[in-house]
Amino acid sequence: MGVTLTLLCQEGIQPAMSTEVKSNAVMSPKELRALFEDVMTRRFFYCPSAEIYGGVAGLYDYGPCGCAVMTNLLTFWRQHFVLAEDMLEISSSVLTPEVVLKTSGHVDKFTDFMVKDEKTGEPLRADKLIEERIEAMLEDTANPVDAKKREELLLVRTKAGAMQQQELKDTIARYGFKSNDGNNLSDPFPFNLMFQTSIGPTGKATGYMRPETAQGIFINFRRLLDYNGGRMPFAAAQIGPALRNEISPRQGLLRVREFTLAEIEHFVNPNDKRHPKFAEVADLKLALLSRELQTGEDISVLMTVREAVEKGTINNETLGYFMARTYLFLKAVGIKEDRMRFRQHKADEMAHYAKDCWDAELLTTYGWVECVGHADRSCYDLESHARVAKIDLSAQEMYDAPKEVDTITVKLDAGKVGKTFRKSAKLVTDYLKALETDRERAVAFEQELKSGSAKFSVCTGEEFTVDASMVSISFEKKIQHGIRYTPSVIEPSFGVGRILYSLLEQNFYIRESKEGKDKDKEGEAKRNVLSLTPVIAPVKVAILPLSTNADLNAQASLIARSFITHNISTKTDASGVAIGRKYARMDEIGIPFAVTIDFDTLKDQTVTIRERDSTHQIRVSITDLVSIISSLVNGFKTWEQVYDSYPKVIRAEESD
Amino acid sequence: MGVTLTLLCQEGIQPAMSTEVKSNAVMSPKELRALFEDVMTRRFFYCPSAEIYGGVAGLYDYGPCGCAVMTNLLTFWRQHFVLAEDMLEISSSVLTPEVVLKTSGHVDKFTDFMVKDEKTGEPLRADKLIEERIEAMLEDTANPVDAKKREELLLVRTKAGAMQQQELKDTIARYGFKSNDGNNLSDPFPFNLMFQTSIGPTGKATGYMRPETAQGIFINFRRLLDYNGGRMPFAAAQIGPALRNEISPRQGLLRVREFTLAEIEHFVNPNDKRHPKFAEVADLKLALLSRELQTGEDISVLMTVREAVEKGTINNETLGYFMARTYLFLKAVGIKEDRMRFRQHKADEMAHYAKDCWDAELLTTYGWVECVGHADRSCYDLESHARVAKIDLSAQEMYDAPKEVDTITVKLDAGKVGKTFRKSAKLVTDYLKALETDRERAVAFEQELKSGSAKFSVCTGEEFTVDASMVSISFEKKIQHGIRYTPSVIEPSFGVGRILYSLLEQNFYIRESKEGKDKDKEGEAKRNVLSLTPVIAPVKVAILPLSTNADLNAQASLIARSFITHNISTKTDASGVAIGRKYARMDEIGIPFAVTIDFDTLKDQTVTIRERDSTHQIRVSITDLVSIISSLVNGFKTWEQVYDSYPKVIRAEESD
Repeated sequence: MGVTLTLLCQEGIQPAMSTEVKSNAVMSPKELRALFEDVMTRRFFYCPSAEIYGGVAGLYDYGPCGCAVMTNLLTFWRQHFVLAEDMLEISSSVLTPEVVLKTSGHVDKFTDFMVKDEKTGEPLRADKLIEERIEAMLEDTANPVDAKKREELLLVRTKAGAMQQQELKDTIARYGFKSNDGNNLSDPFPFNLMFQTSIGPTGKATGYMRPETAQGIFINFRRLLDYNGGRMPFAAAQIGPALRNEISPRQGLLRVREFTLAEIEHFVNPNDKRHPKFAEVADLKLALLSRELQTGEDISVLMTVREAVEKGTINNETLGYFMARTYLFLKAVGIKEDRMRFRQHKADEMAHYAKDCWDAELLTTYGWVECVGHADRSCYDLESHARVAKIDLSAQEMYDAPKEVDTITVKLDAGKVGKTFRKSAKLVTDYLKALETDRERAVAFEQELKSGSAKFSVCTGEEFTVDASMVSISFEKKIQHGIRYTPSVIEPSFGVGRILYSLLEQNFYIRESKEGKDKDKEGEAKRNVLSLTPVIAPVKVAILPLSTNADLNAQASLIARSFITHNISTKTDASGVAIGRKYARMDEIGIPFAVTIDFDTLKDQTVTIRERDSTHQIRVSITDLVSIISSLVNGFKTWEQVYDSYPKVIRAEESD
Repeated sequence: MGVTLTLLCQEGIQPAMSTEVKSNAVMSPKELRALFEDVMTRRFFYCPSAEIYGGVAGLYDYGPCGCAVMTNLLTFWRQHFVLAEDMLEISSSVLTPEVVLKTSGHVDKFTDFMVKDEKTGEPLRADKLIEERIEAMLEDTANPVDAKKREELLLVRTKAGAMQQQELKDTIARYGFKSNDGNNLSDPFPFNLMFQTSIGPTGKATGYMRPETAQGIFINFRRLLDYNGGRMPFAAAQIGPALRNEISPRQGLLRVREFTLAEIEHFVNPNDKRHPKFAEVADLKLALLSRELQTGEDISVLMTVREAVEKGTINNETLGYFMARTYLFLKAVGIKEDRMRFRQHKADEMAHYAKDCWDAELLTTYGWVECVGHADRSCYDLESHARVAKIDLSAQEMYDAPKEVDTITVKLDAGKVGKTFRKSAKLVTDYLKALETDRERAVAFEQELKSGSAKFSVCTGEEFTVDASMVSISFEKKIQHGIRYTPSVIEPSFGVGRILYSLLEQNFYIRESKEGKDKDKEGEAKRNVLSLTPVIAPVKVAILPLSTNADLNAQASLIARSFITHNISTKTDASGVAIGRKYARMDEIGIPFAVTIDFDTLKDQTVTIRERDSTHQIRVSITDLVSIISSLVNGFKTWEQVYDSYPKVIRAEESD
């Protein structure tokens, strides 16, 4: 059972080059990343925000290609989740009043531990500091660590993210970690990650830029349930920006201060987390790295979702269903199957209320990157908001057929209770009413009450005694037509910028030149290829007139226009460079198809279509062009199907 | 020439009911708005943010229908502008470092004037206070104003938005305006509208949530020009949130603190603002309210774009081109032609650097609302950022053929200038080099220099004298292959939330019941119709099983699924209410087509399709269903065409 996956990237064997495409070199992750990031910057996929002023750590701007890939990712996400799963998408404000984030716990607890360089004051995130220092120790060939030490260090690195204040302090002390400048570090202290501002002209109302989109869904739960006609279960979704004031942003798009989240909150009966469509995904095999397997070397196991849920590895069907849907989403947009895994949170990593959490992690040259969280948040959020806002956030579910159930009814003589306990009357009443939901205590209490009175202590610790004249408890069988509950929440949460980065990096490769790898002497990375699927590619078709000839250009404009009327994006290169060079420019930004207009086009109204990955070419009539490309871009036909139906063009395209 | 438009809304004659649809009542704008807003809230198009905590002024959350309409609007905007005009779309960070907004002028000047209630401290926006008080005076039937006074008040109301501190103070004093509680008001003072925060853990770096998206494009100009292969002119675009800390938000979605902008920055040669596609739109007629026509009653004039540009009413072709494209966009999404106009900014409304500005205004029950700005911002922004960031933000344009041009060359003896003027040498040098671009002054200077020396004063007011040994000026004819310039910027800026509001309100109407308007007794607004075009409608198809019968529901699920695989959104109403009631529910949220599944469906696999506005019904086979709806939704066929091709169903649908 199960195939094991290795950490390709840490072994130095072509991490971002997939096996199905050609590659011309075996590079280290860092070498590959340097080439990749050069393309990203030079072709303006993204760049640091306010770059002309020196940039700002953790803030990035997306250029035309990056922005288009992001838009395509989100459009597909909407189709794959919101449309296909009939979710209710909302868009709540980014600016959030304090009370919402106070209730959710973010104002008090959304912190990272920070240490400061005692001399320069430079702030550093404590857990990341530990991870990086350990990384350096493991990679330090001058002072190699032995197997035992290595195992210890791997464990500490894995644990760092979940360490609390004292453990961080101890760890830093144990290994004698210093600041980047080699100075001593302060003790770790919590730093709240939310950007704070003040709403309105009085300066009195505090607001925060939301650190996640989920709370916007929870506080609208009542309206969403109404919109859904009161029916349970259902899911709501939200796409939008979130901001976190990271202590030390780094790793390009991976740890940033502003990012796009796409979050789903699936509301479900806490006692019935089956999913009606589970069978559709149950046989998919996911690479699972459960808690038990996280020993440092972290070897994941391939397992069907069905088996994982049956065994209890994954807590419930709905959680498993969404993990499988995430897997399908990631695969469809172009994530490589062997560079994707699901890692379970360890008990000390999860919030106290969470039932189970699995992160979809994607392998990049930075190692495994957490890109999608899947959490069973129980009913914590709804209960918190219901309590503080004093509003009913429960749902009702009707049974298919009425059920006979055991009920407990506590009857009180409110007058007597009031008179007897005065200020404490509410505490006493609440305690007694709560017995209705706790059979064991109710039975014991009723037993005690038969003696004439019963004693109990309430949540404040105070003790009270009631006598049988004030309270009676009855146990009956009743017919119920449905139940009322505060829903549990299963939350898949997508860090879209991280997926975008991983997707681009995983699909970047260097094409082997036909004439050998040293041919390219212009210092330009001409053989870079970004092998994006048509649905995600920033531009669908390159329009390439063979030369600067005016007639060719006029023809190119006409063709570009015919694509635009079919909502297919194009990029024209009308410059005077050779056609091979134009292909290289288009390959580098991931355009899947190129249309070449040459002098034959003017004679017989045919053009060449070239496919990016195979570099194969066919000759087609302009009349058929848009419909051929349209069927390729919309996934109705594969390139292979099209290639077999038209005359092939054999041409030495490398000769530029 | 030209048809005049009247302010429908202020006359009380069915402002939001268009003539092509039935309406059952003549309502005042406020009555209509109350009905409309009830639908918006009840059906969760939008609601106040953090509503369960009492809401926050100026912040709104979009529910499923509102969010879908917004997504559809933006998708269509991308097609209509970014794709069709080959624009470069980017996405820059919302959080913006101070230096960017300091350079743009926002830190110092992005203010509104505020007054405070001297007793309660309640803050009020000065210009809006004046507008509202004048509105009240004009509407006060107990104290009617005469024609002369009315004219005066209308003028003051029109001017209020452009008033500076002293004029606001004088106006408030002249009319004796008080606070909402009837108390005296403070003098007006400026209040900066940006939300401020601090970036990073040191607390030392100030940042702002951007108040517009435009600056993100300007600071990336260099990279965008490179991406475009250095070619001019070109346009960049950006869609995203912007935030402004409004002093007193109101009017629902119209004056809010967080909103979506879609902005275009078209970069163009400042000396050649022709547009290559101008001829395509030149014959369109726009309702123009030029400066001269803004006398208080504000009667706009219909004029072709060509005539307006030729006459100089609109400053240049590119500005006119974009106004026309905006007109086409607004019409296509469903804005009523007779409730749309373009209002020119008066000289005192524009920024000092702006050449011309036209707002597309849409008529709502609140009056005319500014929804799209069209501004010629000259080269102010690029020049400011170039100066402060010390970076070249100029562009080069190559001529089709080389040109002979007159050039001026100023030669300096830098050593002598340095020695003679020491600290002032740079001022002197800058002044002298600037003569190269000012023929008149250069000629005069050279004339004076012939006497042996020349005197001049620099920008600081200081006077200097140079002698002929330090500087010489030569005038020559040279062959130029192109020119270098800092581009001018033409900016169409779309307030998408305002367009969305206007669109929804303009397309809301009350359908006349066949049995008379008093028939509906359930207190529910059953006859509300939101007449949205299929491209904008939040959901495309309603799936309506006739009853709760399990077989009908199973059939409904199958049909819903077949739509989903074609990316067509559906909403199923499987409740037990009568079919007429189900239609009413769907009409109210603007679903254009409904598919009814009845017991005949189970026999012969046919269903009924009903169109929302005509309420006409046809009977079609399930096999044809998706392709029929698909062609309707994608605009390949009209309802009339489809209606004529299938058997009609005559049914009294009102009987619910």
